[in-house]
Amino acid sequence: MTINEVAELSSNIKYTYQITPEVYFSFQRCSNDFNPLHTDEIFAGTKGYGGRVMYGNILNAFISHFVGMLLPTRDVMILTQNINFRKPLFMNDEVLLEASIEEVSDAAGYVLYKLKFKRLGAKNELVASGHVRVGLI
Amino acid sequence: MTINEVAELSSNIKYTYQITPEVYFSFQRCSNDFNPLHTDEIFAGTKGYGGRVMYGNILNAFISHFVGMLLPTRDVMILTQNINFRKPLFMNDEVLLEASIEEVSDAAGYVLYKLKFKRLGAKNELVASGHVRVGLI
Repeated sequence: MTINEVAELSSNIKYTYQITPEVYFSFQRCSNDFNPLHTDEIFAGTKGYGGRVMYGNILNAFISHFVGMLLPTRDVMILTQNINFRKPLFMNDEVLLEASIEEVSDAAGYVLYKLKFKRLGAKNELVASGHVRVGLI
Repeated sequence: MTINEVAELSSNIKYTYQITPEVYFSFQRCSNDFNPLHTDEIFAGTKGYGGRVMYGNILNAFISHFVGMLLPTRDVMILTQNINFRKPLFMNDEVLLEASIEEVSDAAGYVLYKLKFKRLGAKNELVASGHVRVGLI
């Protein structure tokens, strides 16, 4: 599959993720990040949050899934990635990932996806946005 | 602690991480990314790699640890993050994270760290580089 074909077949992907306890605890185990904002609801409460704030980098793990599992070919690799965290996420939040194509380079061999994460709810508010640049292997 | 104090006390942090089986499998569980490049050494071999290629986003989980656990205060939150993956990593690789300060904004209330990940070995080659912008909570 060529990079143009990948782009054509992945021009508008949407997928819903959930930050389940399994996702949260496996991320904690992977990262060894026990910062109290993420682990201590009383501490998080003193900072004005209604519960433990989920690790933002869980969204980057979801991006790994998007690239590795949702694109039209498995022969892909992440080249670069960026993310802007806008709103805190909490346990059991469901987030909709919307991926659209920002740029395709046939010469350099990549697709640059624009990514938006929205918390499912009354407002579907944007909680994070970013990009991932994907090449073929 | 002020943002300037955070910056002064974290001007040159180095920390060694290892991609152990526990890190690898917990990331897999978190992400549900079973792309064969990361899970099938025969597939990875056909692509020219000497083993399963580790998930690049494991490095983003290490950045979560850097911010949450290694900075001089726990009262921090990641605002933005970017990473450029340069070389593949393999099981049990040890990577040295070197963090230096690129920018401090007292007015906007953040420190921007420049990050380099080097694979420990004969060459200590640069495997990834990026940035993380951290604010106080």
